[in-house]
Amino acid sequence: MHIAFIGLGNMGAPMARNLLKAGHGLTVFDLNPAALASLRADGATVAQSAREAAATADFVITMLPAAAHVRAAYLDQDGVLAGVRPGVPLVDSSTIDPATIRALAVEAGKRGNPMADAPVSGGTGGAQAGTLTFMVGAPPDLFERIRPVLAGMGRNVVSCGDTGTGQVAKICNNLILGISMIGVSEAMALGVRLGIDANVLAGIVNTSTGRCWAADTCNPYPGVIETAPASRGYTGGFGADLMLKDLGLAADAARGVRQPLFLGALAQQVYQAMSQAGDGQLDFSGVIRRYLDTERAA
Amino acid sequence: MHIAFIGLGNMGAPMARNLLKAGHGLTVFDLNPAALASLRADGATVAQSAREAAATADFVITMLPAAAHVRAAYLDQDGVLAGVRPGVPLVDSSTIDPATIRALAVEAGKRGNPMADAPVSGGTGGAQAGTLTFMVGAPPDLFERIRPVLAGMGRNVVSCGDTGTGQVAKICNNLILGISMIGVSEAMALGVRLGIDANVLAGIVNTSTGRCWAADTCNPYPGVIETAPASRGYTGGFGADLMLKDLGLAADAARGVRQPLFLGALAQQVYQAMSQAGDGQLDFSGVIRRYLDTERAA
Repeated sequence: MHIAFIGLGNMGAPMARNLLKAGHGLTVFDLNPAALASLRADGATVAQSAREAAATADFVITMLPAAAHVRAAYLDQDGVLAGVRPGVPLVDSSTIDPATIRALAVEAGKRGNPMADAPVSGGTGGAQAGTLTFMVGAPPDLFERIRPVLAGMGRNVVSCGDTGTGQVAKICNNLILGISMIGVSEAMALGVRLGIDANVLAGIVNTSTGRCWAADTCNPYPGVIETAPASRGYTGGFGADLMLKDLGLAADAARGVRQPLFLGALAQQVYQAMSQAGDGQLDFSGVIRRYLDTERAA
Repeated sequence: MHIAFIGLGNMGAPMARNLLKAGHGLTVFDLNPAALASLRADGATVAQSAREAAATADFVITMLPAAAHVRAAYLDQDGVLAGVRPGVPLVDSSTIDPATIRALAVEAGKRGNPMADAPVSGGTGGAQAGTLTFMVGAPPDLFERIRPVLAGMGRNVVSCGDTGTGQVAKICNNLILGISMIGVSEAMALGVRLGIDANVLAGIVNTSTGRCWAADTCNPYPGVIETAPASRGYTGGFGADLMLKDLGLAADAARGVRQPLFLGALAQQVYQAMSQAGDGQLDFSGVIRRYLDTERAA
């Protein structure tokens, strides 16, 4: 299979390399010449535009920062839809709002191209190791067509429903995650301040009704979980600015359907304050620093 | 061992019965004559006051609705401290603020009585079945003395640290729980509104970073978890008014140490609105009803 891969950033570049390793032919495009040169060195063909990359492809994948880039990559006069042959499946793995992907799928459908969304979780580590989870929004027949390709870049390929539901699954999961991390941060900070040992408190929470990934795997209190970002200065995890992006997508999508998100909105503001303080690149569990007395923490 | 048990409500009465079943002698006191008559029929001795109940006891347990009742039960002229023999351990299983139990422990210590807090989780079902979890705040030697008695009423007896830390553990766990349940409610309501199937969304969350007890065991969306209160009209679980009480304790304790609780405070207001709407007796997962379009839900 010959695949066009558009968007060679921190996620896209290692994903594209895993497709090469899986034996696919690959034509790539990105606005960044250095990213293109690196993939060319690994054996990919470099195109001058998304249109050119798509023209020879049996399969198109895009991995871009935000909805505006995705729209441009598909709809511009040098975009995918101007070059791709009818019938070729299009898969967008960017994390964007469900409304944009659904609108693009309508446009693609008019030209005879089925389109799926397949946002990922697992971060840059998962992209490099090929252990990503793909949350796929696609009709059943399209899902079966694209699953083998995605399986070359990830460990789990999950069907979420029709096109757009991959994005819905991702932003809803991350809405819970963003909220629960702040809940755990407030509780850990309060508990320690009230005299309980952080490890004892975490042990009780993790075997009780407060248990959650944010407490038992990525606990924000330093030293509780040795492998968590909290135990290495909040480096190397899921950046607060990325969480902020996903909470923004949730807020936008909710506004579109008049859905209130009380805690989601406040969580967004708490991470916004973290970002304003210059900590947006830290793992989002660093939000607990906003609750710890720095003199006590030091 | 002869035990004085004070407070025979929905939790206290079945806990006291389990002590009788465990072979302990029991003297009980409550302000409600019907509760006393019921325990007398089961073999307990009825006292006319907390003081009288404590006078003959080798061990005192209290299980009362709030801090004011606990203070009165120990400090009034007819209270426990006026009657109990020096050296007899005192265990309060009520859920109250850590500051009150610590102040009471100081008073009890002046009379030579060691005091522990041991709030429970597991609800009335756990109280009846003898499967409660006790979160015990007590110095190590006191913990070892009281553990066998508590084991007659519960499955897990967990040491949290010195006196007061049992309360800290409970309110911190329930702070996380109260917040995460709203987070799950917002995400489930949003996801379904945006077109994903509730069971598919829950399946993805429960194998991803959003996983938590509120999603995988007590999911608020009707029909997702067959055994959850959501699948039986939000009856028979942990009442929203009880969650509201615990969030109030967290807020009070936090204020005492100048600890901000942004999401905790907003969660409290969301459950307060649920209670104002007349749903305070429903399981707290019924908070999702504040997010569902009732016409769509019907």
